[in-house]
Amino acid sequence: MIVSALLTSVGINFGLCILFLTLYSILRKQVGNINVYAPRLAVEGSSKQTSRFSLESLLPSPGWVRRAWQASEEELLSSSSLDVIVFVRIFSFSLKLFSLAGVVGIFILLPINLCGTQLNEIDISDIPYKSLDQFSISNVEDGSKRLWIHFCAVYFISVVVCYLLHDVQLMPFDVESIMYTLHEKYYEREAWVQFEPVEYNYISLKRVQCFYASKPQPHQFTILVRGIPVSDGSNINDTVDSFFREYHSSTYLSHVVVRRTSKLHELISDAKELYRRLIHLKSTSHQRNRESGFFGKKVDLVNDYEKKLEDLHETVRRGQSDVSLSGEEVPAAFVSFNSRYGAAIGFQFQQSINPTKWVTEQAPEPSDVYWPFFSTSFLKRWIFKLLVLVASFFLTVLFLIPVFLVQGLTNLNQLEKFFPFLKGLLSIAFVSQVITGYLPSLILQLFLSMVPPIMKIFSSMQGFISNSEIEKSACYKVLWFTVWNIFFANVLSGSALTLFNVFLDIKNIPMKLAVAVPAQASFFIAYVVTSGWTSLSSELFRMFPLIWNYINCGRNANDEFDVPSFPYHSEIPRVLFFGLLGIIFFFLAPLILPFLLAYFFLGYVIYRNQFLNVYAPKYETGGKYWPIVHNTMIFALILLQSIAVGTFGLKKLPLASSLTIPLIVLTLLFNEYCRKRFLPMFKAYPAESLINKDREDQNDPNIGIFLDELVNAYKDPALTPIRYSQNDNEHNAPLLEEARVSS
Amino acid sequence: MIVSALLTSVGINFGLCILFLTLYSILRKQVGNINVYAPRLAVEGSSKQTSRFSLESLLPSPGWVRRAWQASEEELLSSSSLDVIVFVRIFSFSLKLFSLAGVVGIFILLPINLCGTQLNEIDISDIPYKSLDQFSISNVEDGSKRLWIHFCAVYFISVVVCYLLHDVQLMPFDVESIMYTLHEKYYEREAWVQFEPVEYNYISLKRVQCFYASKPQPHQFTILVRGIPVSDGSNINDTVDSFFREYHSSTYLSHVVVRRTSKLHELISDAKELYRRLIHLKSTSHQRNRESGFFGKKVDLVNDYEKKLEDLHETVRRGQSDVSLSGEEVPAAFVSFNSRYGAAIGFQFQQSINPTKWVTEQAPEPSDVYWPFFSTSFLKRWIFKLLVLVASFFLTVLFLIPVFLVQGLTNLNQLEKFFPFLKGLLSIAFVSQVITGYLPSLILQLFLSMVPPIMKIFSSMQGFISNSEIEKSACYKVLWFTVWNIFFANVLSGSALTLFNVFLDIKNIPMKLAVAVPAQASFFIAYVVTSGWTSLSSELFRMFPLIWNYINCGRNANDEFDVPSFPYHSEIPRVLFFGLLGIIFFFLAPLILPFLLAYFFLGYVIYRNQFLNVYAPKYETGGKYWPIVHNTMIFALILLQSIAVGTFGLKKLPLASSLTIPLIVLTLLFNEYCRKRFLPMFKAYPAESLINKDREDQNDPNIGIFLDELVNAYKDPALTPIRYSQNDNEHNAPLLEEARVSS
Repeated sequence: MIVSALLTSVGINFGLCILFLTLYSILRKQVGNINVYAPRLAVEGSSKQTSRFSLESLLPSPGWVRRAWQASEEELLSSSSLDVIVFVRIFSFSLKLFSLAGVVGIFILLPINLCGTQLNEIDISDIPYKSLDQFSISNVEDGSKRLWIHFCAVYFISVVVCYLLHDVQLMPFDVESIMYTLHEKYYEREAWVQFEPVEYNYISLKRVQCFYASKPQPHQFTILVRGIPVSDGSNINDTVDSFFREYHSSTYLSHVVVRRTSKLHELISDAKELYRRLIHLKSTSHQRNRESGFFGKKVDLVNDYEKKLEDLHETVRRGQSDVSLSGEEVPAAFVSFNSRYGAAIGFQFQQSINPTKWVTEQAPEPSDVYWPFFSTSFLKRWIFKLLVLVASFFLTVLFLIPVFLVQGLTNLNQLEKFFPFLKGLLSIAFVSQVITGYLPSLILQLFLSMVPPIMKIFSSMQGFISNSEIEKSACYKVLWFTVWNIFFANVLSGSALTLFNVFLDIKNIPMKLAVAVPAQASFFIAYVVTSGWTSLSSELFRMFPLIWNYINCGRNANDEFDVPSFPYHSEIPRVLFFGLLGIIFFFLAPLILPFLLAYFFLGYVIYRNQFLNVYAPKYETGGKYWPIVHNTMIFALILLQSIAVGTFGLKKLPLASSLTIPLIVLTLLFNEYCRKRFLPMFKAYPAESLINKDREDQNDPNIGIFLDELVNAYKDPALTPIRYSQNDNEHNAPLLEEARVSS
Repeated sequence: MIVSALLTSVGINFGLCILFLTLYSILRKQVGNINVYAPRLAVEGSSKQTSRFSLESLLPSPGWVRRAWQASEEELLSSSSLDVIVFVRIFSFSLKLFSLAGVVGIFILLPINLCGTQLNEIDISDIPYKSLDQFSISNVEDGSKRLWIHFCAVYFISVVVCYLLHDVQLMPFDVESIMYTLHEKYYEREAWVQFEPVEYNYISLKRVQCFYASKPQPHQFTILVRGIPVSDGSNINDTVDSFFREYHSSTYLSHVVVRRTSKLHELISDAKELYRRLIHLKSTSHQRNRESGFFGKKVDLVNDYEKKLEDLHETVRRGQSDVSLSGEEVPAAFVSFNSRYGAAIGFQFQQSINPTKWVTEQAPEPSDVYWPFFSTSFLKRWIFKLLVLVASFFLTVLFLIPVFLVQGLTNLNQLEKFFPFLKGLLSIAFVSQVITGYLPSLILQLFLSMVPPIMKIFSSMQGFISNSEIEKSACYKVLWFTVWNIFFANVLSGSALTLFNVFLDIKNIPMKLAVAVPAQASFFIAYVVTSGWTSLSSELFRMFPLIWNYINCGRNANDEFDVPSFPYHSEIPRVLFFGLLGIIFFFLAPLILPFLLAYFFLGYVIYRNQFLNVYAPKYETGGKYWPIVHNTMIFALILLQSIAVGTFGLKKLPLASSLTIPLIVLTLLFNEYCRKRFLPMFKAYPAESLINKDREDQNDPNIGIFLDELVNAYKDPALTPIRYSQNDNEHNAPLLEEARVSS
């Protein structure tokens, strides 16, 4: 790739971005689009938009950028969850990292690379026709002393990444405010005085802060028990009760046995669907009635639907009253305790001599519970987990084979054969060019977009019990998928099996990577500009919801609509992959850095805007996504360092090559240290925090009511009366009333 | 090696064994040797030997074999610890395994190997001159269908090992008795009825049984806390007290802050040494006085010693009374609780938000505490651990280099040069032959015997706080050392670096091993016969203690002597290594099996005899050595299977080679399953057991006294009045009395 081609690509994509941003800033002001561009605010009722038409609303304005940029972390946190903070933190982390790296890369490494003569193109005058390879390390002469600057750069970036991962997350002013909040509450307790703020990792501290600030929540007091050993002649209910009364007498409160209620769930979702259609029908017929006086057939349909809904309700009610028929009990139960510490003791301790019986784990939030493949058997879950790991391994490794096959099948001739009516269209030169040019990449994109959902299904089969854990596990899977199929498959450009052969030959990995990675630098620069920038503007523009909104334009504004939740499992890997590219190419081809900086800057603004307006958190893991970020950055560093070992070897500077190896060891040690020092905080809260929080509750007058309500928190939703609104009740009270009347 | 050479070696070693066994059966009956052959019984005072001379005591008798064989596991357990049961279990496990494997190997595999013609020596008539290689798989023709029998044998041994590791440890009658014991105590508790004995791993069940049978012990109620954050102006004592009163108010009992008392320790050991000499002097002078009326200088010496001892006592007493001078407080403490469950909550929970502060772990038994390199800093301990791992890695890998160097230096010429007076002796042909023949192997043995102590020192630097953990960790280190330096170094017979190159090239490992391992079969058969059998007879014969006993023949029988403790860290690796050899050579050269069976049979009898008579347990880990055995056996299986993959590839049977790979996967899965299913029981006791045991204590009238005494259990021995006997007080009361008078 030559410079002018890159500049063209940058120009086109920059133009597209500007176009989308402008369109967004106009469209977001239209009243009809509130469900697309501010669904969260719409549901919360805090949107200030009025339907008054004005010229101003047709002009683009950058106000949203300022608002998104200025929103403080506290503001973001109050409107969403700590996970969002973690996600935004990836951007601010990357911005800091690549600003520093960018300065070094552009002003030190790039000139050195350009001055090289290795690629035999000494003429610098004609920059547009220079190959991009001349901007990379490949252009430096073999054995040149200037490579020592690259060597220093590798040490520099490693130190910066580790420092940022460890310390700068802890910005002084943040800590001040946190310490203040904490001290205000606990200033009388001596333990807090011994706090050493300087050492603390920002996010793990934030996690504690959020925990302290949280209201009592059911999942803090509840554990899930599986593998309950039931002997003949006793039932699960009594077994659980007697076990916890025996061994947790002072803290045990109540329990709910889990039931298989998939049939009831089906019935209820049928009823809900019917209800939705009924409401829609009623409102439209009502309107039409008012508008045109038209009456007749519609009313029959309404009556028919009402009759059906009534029948369904009757069936559900019968099923709920006779549980033994509708939902079989399984040997698992949600057990509630009267304190957080009690619950923590319950799930951190091995309960029974046989570790496969009375297996406990922390309960997810009631709304987060999701287990299409719930199983109580230890062995079954273990086997399922293995099968899923094998399946996702094969999906990752063999993914490109079907893609190539389909790409091969869908050439022009095939298309003409299957869709003869397209023949005329396809014979036009321009159309056929577009199709041959874009179809393969469209197919790849189509296949790629299927991966996160598939990985999510895999993770849900793995035996997790909550949406949050499923998405967290899917996040890892998608990340490895991306790294393997976009990075390694492109770099080593071979079939899965040859890729494997490279990795089986451990000694030669650095050398092989050092040959292959710089050669692909221009591809990845283009990748950042096209895929990266485009993904951001499409994230902002929300094409599909927008189209959907226009199609459903006529529907009642009061109609329920779901506030979207953020798909962490597909977005985090995407962003992290760009970070990984930046770290790896920093010393190989620093030209990538300005484009990456643009990506991260734009992403920072756009995602903050989306979190403020669009997404509502479905769950709160308390920042448990951060270890994924940390691990990926460390992986990127190790990869960079291995490539550096190979590169210096290739460039005939064996001393630099050997001197890079200690850096790998040091990075691994740093990672190990962080695992010991920070990871425990992301697993469970310490005794200190739990007990402090419990004590605080004792002064809360509402805690009694909360504990009484705890029994019902984990009741199967299929066993409670049907509720038609997922959001708050009050807001939709009239609708519910209507439904009750109609049924 | 040819058959006749092997037979000669077997004959010599067999003769030596018989000789040693016969000598032992005579010597053990001599009164003077009681301290050598039954020190444990001597100290316990349960030895029935009388000093009456009889002819019978000069005749060898096999009675001790019968007694050792017949002793039940309960008998062994009552006289020693569960660790001993685990050690003996290695032998019974190996006996079962290699009996089964022996039948298959000798009656099926061996004839097939012998019938092969690959090595071109078809003449079977002249067995003594056959090469041992003809008994190995190398002799089967390439691509022969009979190799499928070997393939089946690989599957057979894998299944047998896994089955034995998992299930047969649970012998029906044993479980019956355990269940009876358990039920007798807990028959009224419902939880016990749900026990499923068939699934239980024998040793983990035994562990629980021992726990239930144990009396209240200080270490069950105590934890060690490190990294206590002390702010200016408060002392450690108050910080610990307020923290545990705050967060463990209902279970916290007391604590003892750890002090650096190495100076006092030195003074006290000086005093003890002086005391020992004084007593010896007194008793000899007393005797002589009685015998010859000789008197004079001795008395002066006695008076002199008494004076010195008195001074020392005074210094120690002053040091003890003014602790601030003698022992600096460190931010670590033993914290005691009023229940086992309370202590378990203390050490299983992360206490503080910062996981490097208030780091807790289970306290070792008071007599087991040992920390020459005790450190409270998290970071320091972590760095030390890393350094130790690196050091033991290098010791393992580079061990053979100094050995070769020394072997090169100590040739005859060098000896003559350094010790000219030996010149005459060395010129005798026989002597020089013996020296050139035995000196290199003597040097190797000398170096090898230094390894377990060095590894133990390494482990103690790693930051463990008890003898038991140090030995457990040293056990792993010695095991890897043995496998690397005796197995791999012999098999691949190269320098450390080339060995490494083999392992970096993962794909070709099986092939390289398949070429190298069968070639060394005869060496390892000889190794079993020489090193294995010899180590057993020297274990029984106790050469050095015997010689030492004869040298000190004149000393008073009342003199104190230490009952030896069993060196698990050097013995377990030795025995396991023979098991590993057996598994690996089972299908390559089954001729090794009869010799191994003889080793394990002899070992079973001899070690049981030694445990009954010689060794006294220094600590009780509750069978925590078993996971090491399990892991080694799994490692041996994986090694065997990798070699099989390579062998079938070499023998041109690629299908068998590929079909062995699933076996590796299955074995790894089995291991993973066992880790999940059984390992937790070896880490900590579950809530169920702890609470049951605590409840049982509540009915114990002595528990109050025990809890009151708990405060003193972990007091630094340097801060208590000097006691001169390590064993029980009553037994040595007269001696103590004497000491008190003398000081």
